[in-house]
Amino acid sequence: MPDPIYLDHNATTPIAPEVIDAMLPWLREQHGNPSSSHVFGRRAAQAVAAARAQVANLIGAQPAEIVFTGCATEANNLALCGVAQAVPAQRRHLVISAVEHPAVTAPAMYLRSEGWDVTVLPVDAFGRVSIEDVARALRPDTALVSVMHANNEVGTLQPVAGIAALTRPRGILLHTDAAQSAGKLPVDVDGLGVDLLTLAGHKFNAPKGIGALYVRAGTPIRAILHGADQEHGLRPGTENVALIVALGAAAALASGSLPELTAQLQALRDSLHAQLEAGVPGLLLNGHPQQRLPNTLHVSFPGVSGRALLADAADTVAASVGSACHSEHDAVSGVLAAMGIDAARASGAVRLSVGRTTQLDDIDCAAAALIAAWSRLARP
Amino acid sequence: MPDPIYLDHNATTPIAPEVIDAMLPWLREQHGNPSSSHVFGRRAAQAVAAARAQVANLIGAQPAEIVFTGCATEANNLALCGVAQAVPAQRRHLVISAVEHPAVTAPAMYLRSEGWDVTVLPVDAFGRVSIEDVARALRPDTALVSVMHANNEVGTLQPVAGIAALTRPRGILLHTDAAQSAGKLPVDVDGLGVDLLTLAGHKFNAPKGIGALYVRAGTPIRAILHGADQEHGLRPGTENVALIVALGAAAALASGSLPELTAQLQALRDSLHAQLEAGVPGLLLNGHPQQRLPNTLHVSFPGVSGRALLADAADTVAASVGSACHSEHDAVSGVLAAMGIDAARASGAVRLSVGRTTQLDDIDCAAAALIAAWSRLARP
Repeated sequence: MPDPIYLDHNATTPIAPEVIDAMLPWLREQHGNPSSSHVFGRRAAQAVAAARAQVANLIGAQPAEIVFTGCATEANNLALCGVAQAVPAQRRHLVISAVEHPAVTAPAMYLRSEGWDVTVLPVDAFGRVSIEDVARALRPDTALVSVMHANNEVGTLQPVAGIAALTRPRGILLHTDAAQSAGKLPVDVDGLGVDLLTLAGHKFNAPKGIGALYVRAGTPIRAILHGADQEHGLRPGTENVALIVALGAAAALASGSLPELTAQLQALRDSLHAQLEAGVPGLLLNGHPQQRLPNTLHVSFPGVSGRALLADAADTVAASVGSACHSEHDAVSGVLAAMGIDAARASGAVRLSVGRTTQLDDIDCAAAALIAAWSRLARP
Repeated sequence: MPDPIYLDHNATTPIAPEVIDAMLPWLREQHGNPSSSHVFGRRAAQAVAAARAQVANLIGAQPAEIVFTGCATEANNLALCGVAQAVPAQRRHLVISAVEHPAVTAPAMYLRSEGWDVTVLPVDAFGRVSIEDVARALRPDTALVSVMHANNEVGTLQPVAGIAALTRPRGILLHTDAAQSAGKLPVDVDGLGVDLLTLAGHKFNAPKGIGALYVRAGTPIRAILHGADQEHGLRPGTENVALIVALGAAAALASGSLPELTAQLQALRDSLHAQLEAGVPGLLLNGHPQQRLPNTLHVSFPGVSGRALLADAADTVAASVGSACHSEHDAVSGVLAAMGIDAARASGAVRLSVGRTTQLDDIDCAAAALIAAWSRLARP
């Protein structure tokens, strides 16, 4: 039996062939430790430097502002907990949104346990934070605001630049988790006005096990892991050379193809939506209809559970009912709850996320399978 | 010009072809997120489970006792800082040795800044901690002892099992950083009597960017990064599937070839030593002559600086004067200083470390090049 059609690119993506080609020499032939002063080490250090420039270029940063990490979760932890250790002791107020990934929510709750005051911003029915709520939340002791660029479940984009217009004049730092948006949409650190930004390699066709944190020059931050002096003293440990090269290659691939890719993803996604709407009366879109990731379709099927629907269609379609981090839990998604979506609608929700390798045929086939599964389950 | 002979396997090792073969499918064809419940996710989860069993097998542990991390530095941080968060508040005394890697020393100094009392054990002229000093250091409030299995510079092995005989009856936890010994010598968590043990993939022919922490069942420990629930709740972030598979393959390779490999490394190392002794009157061995890594030869050349010697021989031999983490610093190594080695002898020191791919021809050629370089520099 062939593999099902993969419509779960928000969980993780296949590695692009160009990325594999770029990293293979660093697995097969070149093995130096970038900290070694001999020729093997110097070559590795040069490869890391080149990748750093590629990643910086993707987001409009300087190479010295990129810190490679083991994953986006680590980058988010470094952003929140690393800043928390470096800001003045009288500024211990953090603002996050109600729809952050656990990789932001959990360090925020850790900081709360350490005595920080944490404000959690509500979102509207589309999953968006309001600028007015941000303005009300900011205080003289606010050190940091962390609001994601795009939500991993429903895909809604947050008004990050608008938030920056509030935080910057007040000397408040702004972090955004761009794990889901980078490589799908233009992400520019100056356009967004952020001081810190998280990247996840495996969400844009690099391998799992590599992430990066953008840290604007001058941002107060300390390492959260302790050891030698790699990564400007912000992330100790021998550099993951092959995966850093891969992240650079994925960044270069995205930089070179972004407007076309964005349009391609959106066309596939919209075709899937149109076919499902035609075949499933009462289908409801979750998330913002426009301010949304181009690849993400989060919809509620009426009268069925999303989990049962995906189980029924599993031979043809691989997708998820929410974030992979929670795929084993049956509880209603915190994101949908924050959006005020009722239990029945949340139960019928499915996240369908297309990617660089998705074909139009895949969309037609997946739509037919999901409609057929829904017909079997909803009309017994 | 061909590449020089690589005698810096303590800095990092080439990836074994078997390891590359094992990981390639997880880069090329299989891309699932182990947390996804569809077939792509289940396959990835199975691959991670198989690798976990392979790594556990290498060190005589149970699979559930293995936590995959982004590097050995992270594993050491998790051991020290993760235990520090979980032990009773009245036990805030930590014991380390004077020759630990920065990945242990730095988190220990961080804990000191957080109010912990840290005792640093001295070492003898061979770089060994004495059991008597450990016994004197232990106190009713001692929570954890962290003493490395083998030193990364001089290769000296520590009496870890002897330390365990002191810590275990007192209910004190014992961690050992086995980054340098695993894959070169038998490492058995029960034989050593440790509660926590660190592994570094890239020191035994797996890629950089993957490590593991052994955590004996029942050991009090908390995650130091915060996010979703991967790795038994001890290390959040999407699993680095390909590199985890690689670590498993490297563990299996080491498990299957260890006595032969140990003997092979030792024969190469001893041949290099014999040739250098014959050609360099006054050459001094640093580290313990017997209780030492089989692949490590740390020697002081008389009348020259090690750095100048390696620069002169750089076309033929790639090695280092100390740990890669400090290769750019000119200060005397803290390890040699702790051993009471004087500045002149320390200045002439070179670390030559052989590996799985080193050939006898390499040894002969490297020895000749080093002797020739020494002759040029020491007798001007």
